[in-house]
Amino acid sequence: MSVTAAKGFVASGVAAGIRPSGKPDLALVRSIPRAVGAAMWTTNRVQAAPITVSKRHLEAAQPQAVVINAGVANAATGARGEADAVATADGAAAQLGLPPDEVLVLSTGVIGAPLPVDKVLAGIRAAVLDLSPEGGGAAAGAILTTDSGPKLAVAAGPGFTVGGMAKGAGMIHPCLATMLVVITTDYPLRAEEVDGFLRPAVERTFNRISVDGDCSTNDAVILLANGASGAGRDDDAFRAALHDVCARLARQVVEDGEGCTVVLEVRVDGAASETDAVAIARRIATSPLVKTAAFGHDPNWGRVLMAAGSAPGADGFAALDTERLTVAFDGVPVFAAGAPTGDVPTLAGAVCRIDLDLGLGDGAAAYLASDLSYDYVRINAEYTT
Amino acid sequence: MSVTAAKGFVASGVAAGIRPSGKPDLALVRSIPRAVGAAMWTTNRVQAAPITVSKRHLEAAQPQAVVINAGVANAATGARGEADAVATADGAAAQLGLPPDEVLVLSTGVIGAPLPVDKVLAGIRAAVLDLSPEGGGAAAGAILTTDSGPKLAVAAGPGFTVGGMAKGAGMIHPCLATMLVVITTDYPLRAEEVDGFLRPAVERTFNRISVDGDCSTNDAVILLANGASGAGRDDDAFRAALHDVCARLARQVVEDGEGCTVVLEVRVDGAASETDAVAIARRIATSPLVKTAAFGHDPNWGRVLMAAGSAPGADGFAALDTERLTVAFDGVPVFAAGAPTGDVPTLAGAVCRIDLDLGLGDGAAAYLASDLSYDYVRINAEYTT
Repeated sequence: MSVTAAKGFVASGVAAGIRPSGKPDLALVRSIPRAVGAAMWTTNRVQAAPITVSKRHLEAAQPQAVVINAGVANAATGARGEADAVATADGAAAQLGLPPDEVLVLSTGVIGAPLPVDKVLAGIRAAVLDLSPEGGGAAAGAILTTDSGPKLAVAAGPGFTVGGMAKGAGMIHPCLATMLVVITTDYPLRAEEVDGFLRPAVERTFNRISVDGDCSTNDAVILLANGASGAGRDDDAFRAALHDVCARLARQVVEDGEGCTVVLEVRVDGAASETDAVAIARRIATSPLVKTAAFGHDPNWGRVLMAAGSAPGADGFAALDTERLTVAFDGVPVFAAGAPTGDVPTLAGAVCRIDLDLGLGDGAAAYLASDLSYDYVRINAEYTT
Repeated sequence: MSVTAAKGFVASGVAAGIRPSGKPDLALVRSIPRAVGAAMWTTNRVQAAPITVSKRHLEAAQPQAVVINAGVANAATGARGEADAVATADGAAAQLGLPPDEVLVLSTGVIGAPLPVDKVLAGIRAAVLDLSPEGGGAAAGAILTTDSGPKLAVAAGPGFTVGGMAKGAGMIHPCLATMLVVITTDYPLRAEEVDGFLRPAVERTFNRISVDGDCSTNDAVILLANGASGAGRDDDAFRAALHDVCARLARQVVEDGEGCTVVLEVRVDGAASETDAVAIARRIATSPLVKTAAFGHDPNWGRVLMAAGSAPGADGFAALDTERLTVAFDGVPVFAAGAPTGDVPTLAGAVCRIDLDLGLGDGAAAYLASDLSYDYVRINAEYTT
């Protein structure tokens, strides 16, 4: 079950009264044996207080526990917000018998509202009492906001397990790290190795998805490794399992994207470079015109060309030659050799696949995005600060 | 009346049968005295055939006439598309007694569909017979697609006039030039001067608006100057009149943006540089979360901070320090000195003004954008290739 699938991790999720709905809103994850960890944080210049505090802690110590609250993001809350994040970590550390800098804190929810610290501290006391090796599901349920359900993934390698949980449905756009994600493993890693495994996995999964092109102030992906499996080293297998967990969580975030009715799978091949391929895939995946067309089940390749042609590149725009470009919707070529093929595929499914081959080089990239629907507008027009 | 407000210009607009609706869809503008001209074109790597042909013509000669068709964009149409654009210019040139390279051609409408050249040529014959000094309104009406009505602006200086027409409601985002715009003036200019006046006016007007963040394949802004006023030189007055016409046409494009119910006026002051100010203003003006909040009349400054903090800048992100930043909605400060002020303004109007002062330097920029409404989604989910 998510973060407790790997050996030696306990977790819990409780209702601390932070969310007005009364739903579970405080999660705690802890490694029983000593763990090592790494994290990737939002690159937004406006960073939430828990991000600031957790970064400081991660620089000073190896993380043994993570406290996450939903309902209030504790972002743009000034000096009080930072004091509240410190109080949260201190409270959890005292209850868990850890130095405060071995606790990471994450928050998600409304920006600008103050954290109700008393409720958080009372919630932490309850969560500590609830910690169990079966608590991964409860933890994953307690970190949600507009999500329709928990996002979990588990992958196993020879003798070890990688498990993770994620939350995120809006303000989703790659900025090195996206959303709140906690991944645990009992695979044996040294402290200095964790980042080197986490970074490439995140780069090709969480950094290749978009719901609305907006980069949150609170995004974080945390990996804890405690070696409790007793398994031997098989780094390729671990890398594959970690990628698998990241990719499955990332896909769940898109599928649960605010108002999502169609998942766009954008694949770019034959670009002049990987940088160009990523830029073109991202530009297509974030274009409101492409996303509304997907919502309308319209194989509107003209909008795909428009987006591809305006993707930023090294010298202003990514390299593109319409004479060498082919575009396909759900495997049906619609544009080739500078002109329409005349084929009009029928798009009816919950997935819309858009493939571009630029015919220029070896650069390739894949991207996942939600469509842009009436419900996206409704959710975000009604959701108040 | 738009492009015929200045002396010495005639125009017309006719229904050539290109748009299935039977609405007017072909416009012709011509200077009677010899004119000089300049233009700014879309920077999208995918450029429509009429853009390619018009660029070539503008390099070879001074433009005397512009033919514009609506309904079909003649973009991504391969070699046939270019031949069709050439045939359009040739047909107009023959009817007007001009060399072909003195005619510019523009198209707007569906991408990927072939231009019905026979209808275009018949339309040109009718349009030439209709040319008149009162034809500016008819021309402005014949270049529309999803626009709700024509966009016109006229400004006068000492002894001269500047008039223009524009079309554009979707796929609107600054890429040096945006939408189709034709501006005429009877102010006396030499050929080599036109571009130097046009470029800064466009940079601060059409390049500072966004409907959907999507940059079209067909955008163009053309300025024709024929000196027919007989006025003396007053470059400051001309610059002001040209800016005025550009700014008023740009605002009309946003007000008529697809599904627009609220115009966002974003103003950034105190940025470290003008580049940063433009990047931050643009990022706010194109954020789906800010735009849906505007649609919901929600003074959601958290989303404004999120957007500002992720604006691209010289070293990754534009410079920003939340401790020095103030944000106001409709003049009411909502965030200052790193924390919320506690004020919650009521937003009810058709305009939502968002002011940021970064407190870092002298960089300033203004940006106009439409909100993101149900109707935006409806229009773009239903509008088929």
